[in-house]
Amino acid sequence: MAKRGVKVEIKELESAVEEVVGRMGVIERFGKAADHIEGLAEIDTDRFGIAVVTDGGATVTGGEADEPFAIQSISKVFGLTLALQAFGDEVWKRVGREPSGDPFNSIVDLERQKGIPRNPFINPGAIVVSDMLLDISAKSDTNKTVREFLADQIGEDVGIDRKVFDKESSSGFNNRAMANLCKSFGNLNHEVEAVMKPYVSQCAIALSARQLALAGRYLMDGGDKPTDQQRLLARRVNSLMLTCGQYDGSGEFAFRVGLPAKSGVGGGILAIAPGVASIGVWSPGLDDNGNSLLGTLALEQLAERMGWSVFG
Amino acid sequence: MAKRGVKVEIKELESAVEEVVGRMGVIERFGKAADHIEGLAEIDTDRFGIAVVTDGGATVTGGEADEPFAIQSISKVFGLTLALQAFGDEVWKRVGREPSGDPFNSIVDLERQKGIPRNPFINPGAIVVSDMLLDISAKSDTNKTVREFLADQIGEDVGIDRKVFDKESSSGFNNRAMANLCKSFGNLNHEVEAVMKPYVSQCAIALSARQLALAGRYLMDGGDKPTDQQRLLARRVNSLMLTCGQYDGSGEFAFRVGLPAKSGVGGGILAIAPGVASIGVWSPGLDDNGNSLLGTLALEQLAERMGWSVFG
Amino acid sequence: MAKRGVKVEIKELESAVEEVVGRMGVIERFGKAADHIEGLAEIDTDRFGIAVVTDGGATVTGGEADEPFAIQSISKVFGLTLALQAFGDEVWKRVGREPSGDPFNSIVDLERQKGIPRNPFINPGAIVVSDMLLDISAKSDTNKTVREFLADQIGEDVGIDRKVFDKESSSGFNNRAMANLCKSFGNLNHEVEAVMKPYVSQCAIALSARQLALAGRYLMDGGDKPTDQQRLLARRVNSLMLTCGQYDGSGEFAFRVGLPAKSGVGGGILAIAPGVASIGVWSPGLDDNGNSLLGTLALEQLAERMGWSVFG
Amino acid sequence: MAKRGVKVEIKELESAVEEVVGRMGVIERFGKAADHIEGLAEIDTDRFGIAVVTDGGATVTGGEADEPFAIQSISKVFGLTLALQAFGDEVWKRVGREPSGDPFNSIVDLERQKGIPRNPFINPGAIVVSDMLLDISAKSDTNKTVREFLADQIGEDVGIDRKVFDKESSSGFNNRAMANLCKSFGNLNHEVEAVMKPYVSQCAIALSARQLALAGRYLMDGGDKPTDQQRLLARRVNSLMLTCGQYDGSGEFAFRVGLPAKSGVGGGILAIAPGVASIGVWSPGLDDNGNSLLGTLALEQLAERMGWSVFG
Repeated sequence: MAKRGVKVEIKELESAVEEVVGRMGVIERFGKAADHIEGLAEIDTDRFGIAVVTDGGATVTGGEADEPFAIQSISKVFGLTLALQAFGDEVWKRVGREPSGDPFNSIVDLERQKGIPRNPFINPGAIVVSDMLLDISAKSDTNKTVREFLADQIGEDVGIDRKVFDKESSSGFNNRAMANLCKSFGNLNHEVEAVMKPYVSQCAIALSARQLALAGRYLMDGGDKPTDQQRLLARRVNSLMLTCGQYDGSGEFAFRVGLPAKSGVGGGILAIAPGVASIGVWSPGLDDNGNSLLGTLALEQLAERMGWSVFG
Repeated sequence: MAKRGVKVEIKELESAVEEVVGRMGVIERFGKAADHIEGLAEIDTDRFGIAVVTDGGATVTGGEADEPFAIQSISKVFGLTLALQAFGDEVWKRVGREPSGDPFNSIVDLERQKGIPRNPFINPGAIVVSDMLLDISAKSDTNKTVREFLADQIGEDVGIDRKVFDKESSSGFNNRAMANLCKSFGNLNHEVEAVMKPYVSQCAIALSARQLALAGRYLMDGGDKPTDQQRLLARRVNSLMLTCGQYDGSGEFAFRVGLPAKSGVGGGILAIAPGVASIGVWSPGLDDNGNSLLGTLALEQLAERMGWSVFG
Repeated sequence: MAKRGVKVEIKELESAVEEVVGRMGVIERFGKAADHIEGLAEIDTDRFGIAVVTDGGATVTGGEADEPFAIQSISKVFGLTLALQAFGDEVWKRVGREPSGDPFNSIVDLERQKGIPRNPFINPGAIVVSDMLLDISAKSDTNKTVREFLADQIGEDVGIDRKVFDKESSSGFNNRAMANLCKSFGNLNHEVEAVMKPYVSQCAIALSARQLALAGRYLMDGGDKPTDQQRLLARRVNSLMLTCGQYDGSGEFAFRVGLPAKSGVGGGILAIAPGVASIGVWSPGLDDNGNSLLGTLALEQLAERMGWSVFG
Repeated sequence: MAKRGVKVEIKELESAVEEVVGRMGVIERFGKAADHIEGLAEIDTDRFGIAVVTDGGATVTGGEADEPFAIQSISKVFGLTLALQAFGDEVWKRVGREPSGDPFNSIVDLERQKGIPRNPFINPGAIVVSDMLLDISAKSDTNKTVREFLADQIGEDVGIDRKVFDKESSSGFNNRAMANLCKSFGNLNHEVEAVMKPYVSQCAIALSARQLALAGRYLMDGGDKPTDQQRLLARRVNSLMLTCGQYDGSGEFAFRVGLPAKSGVGGGILAIAPGVASIGVWSPGLDDNGNSLLGTLALEQLAERMGWSVFG
């Protein structure tokens, strides 16, 4: 839909963000921090930050919008973007586009689908995408790491959360299990460890909510003076975020919030109101599906207040 | 997003529909008609009809827009609507909201989830919803059959495809298997056969593409002078159609078309451009996931041409 | 192995049975009675009876060897015997011979195997066998109900546990789910309810441990003056009892006891020492796999003491 | 059962072996050689060798009884023996004793069982056992490799099939997937590669049918002048071979042959007639379950002719 013309009232947005931040302050259940990654478990679960960048270029923030956190699975969105830019529809020969619908055991699906991960936002899918990125020729202008791509989008260098990186480099056996299974089916060109390295690196990238919102602008409007190709890519990535972006809580999130979004176990969520806004939110307490509890709640209230749901 | 203000240019829409109908005429692969239901298998797979009703009230049609077909699983949308009107969020105690992610064997999920179907658009989910509808008090104004609800929405009586009804009444052992499994977990209040009867009836309702588009108007705009409650209901049903509406091709459909939609094995699809249009399309040839092949293609082209994707 | 010549010392057997009964009396954990069938749940879990019939014709009993109990799944052994007598190897076109290896959800396997149950000792397997028995011509001498077959083997009429029969007739939705699934794959010739009736009846047959041991004699030695055919049938049924007879505890039972055996949730177990003894044991407390806890322990001790394991 | 007294008539055995070898020579379907391991696929599938060692010490051979072949999964029996000698029942805390009942995807079970393999004869089970063997103290007399154990049993050095070893060392991604999954659940003490090395080595051990039969003597009679402990160990390993020894054809094998046995994809089978005989057989053509087709047939005929089935 031609939403580009929709104007966001900045005053109204500022008031909405303020109200949301206020409400987060009085909530008493924050979920649990990811306990499977040491670096994360030490963080207080009641911390909260939000940033909204509008199509018009305004940035509205609230709470700890400049606190960096490991983006974890949100990095899968950017890895997929680079792969689509380099390989186009070839990507879909090696990874599917359907929600996994599986609470825990994606490895089951992976075996059933003969090494073709259900979508690029589950771990084996992102591992296969990482394998593809290793095949981009050094001469191509899409030959960038996820970290370089993010620096370009945000306009400043981005860091790595060392604790997360070190921890995940030396564990991650479940991911290695899935990588080996993909390789056993011929869906990994490079050695497992060669693929795991950039995969772990991109998960450990640290961004603030403000930086995350800036990084997502190309999904809101296809980029600055977007080509049809760029707008199509944005639309497609948005569709995948909506159907597959929140692990086994994707249907729930669509139902409650109604925006394409991708979460990470670091507590971050990137959400897109197509043509209108790019939103970064962070709060480290997670719900049972591994999505930020306060982050989801804040997005639900903001989208409701601003009328941003894509569903009407 | 406040899309109500978006005006559809009727001329442009007429030209788009015409173009889509023309393109369908030269396609040579039409998929296969559903062979598991006798009534359906006799139909030519290249038949095609489409109807678009706009927010402004205009109706634009193309092809065999007045040919009736069994709506089959599209009826699940209307059954869910009645259940939500009567029971509100209580519905979600007995049925989930996540995509099933399972190519064939939803019975596996059903067992894993202890008789709580993954969502209301897979067969066991709709069977549980049918069970709920039997509990609506005779005095309630939501005490309507799906058929009565549709007659109200469309403004004319709606018929039943007798062949489909007779065939499905005397077979449907897989559905009975799932109904019994739900009952074994205590998630069916009524006898299996008492629930199967209205379930089979609603699947056999015959509508034309035009009638289907009219029936979907309340999902486009929440209804005539909608209350907040009605708009919320529409938004929620739309979100479920987008994540779960096309069997195991829901992710694919969101990726290609970008609209909330529900398909049936009779070849029909109801698609909603929130705030803008309600679309009924029909062509009996199905793709591997059981969705109308030409119907999906037509919606993809129409949404692209009109810029209706909810994803930007 | 030519074990027919092995002589059981009756004195030693009597002393062994007495010792086992004594040990059972001082055990303090008895497992839980089957709570999913009302008639059963009222029984004290510490009750215990045992009977051993030797190849030589002697009967040695201990505890409550004349107390009747519902044989439940043990009836599957006799149903299979009748089907093999009538149809020979044709049976194996409709039911497999492999352990199910599935803690709970045999319905998953059933779907994966397209309606062919993994073996005749899981519920859907026995339901398919019951369907076969309905096709035995009235003129055939194998046209007997399981109950009539048992009366012949034991030499006296056998009764039905009415409570169990009534309870299971009006519930059993999980079994009906599996029967419908078999039917949806074309592996049930008769109507679901027509098959469920004799299935439920045979499960409710009430035998004492003594009667059960007498009923199993044909598996110990192939019957009185057995033909090669009868001995082959006994050997085959024994092999299935060993690999598939104790639900998901079959490997454990083979490991500990080392005898072909079939258990029922009524607390009974029929065990066979080929060529040597037929053993009936009963104690209603069940372990986590649904097998009689004291019954298994008693068989383990008796087999150890008498050197009866088939494994050396 | 006290089968030790059963005397095997050597003349009869020789005649039975000769007859079996003769019959194998006229069979025209030999199954397919394992194609997933290069070294094996080059072998003619009609080759056949057999050796029987009796409790009395006689050896009777037929066909190519001295042709070495990679024992592959048969090595799992010997690895388990070493682990049981060193750790006793502690073994069962890390690996189960139930048939897997799963045609292909043992990784599913592995995830469902939280990294505890269903039994020691599926690949992940043997990998966990290999991990245990790395923890046997250098001082223990059970601190032997499988290869050293076999040399002791047979009384001569045993070799390695280099082609098989090299091939499997550099592939085996599915096994590495399962090893990583075990490690992710904390059920692997050592690094994946440190465990894979001895695992691959033991699979590549090359024995002839004659050597294999000699190696299995301790399972026939518990060893020379066996202690109760040794006889118990033999009995237990035999029980596991019977319920879990032939992949997803274990029930079928018990039904047809009626002996504890373990097969390998190299075409070998070790079968035990407890107290009577240890049998090694080899023919590289495999059936659909990965078991030697001629090998199974030969054992079926030999057991039938000699009356060796443990089931009567």
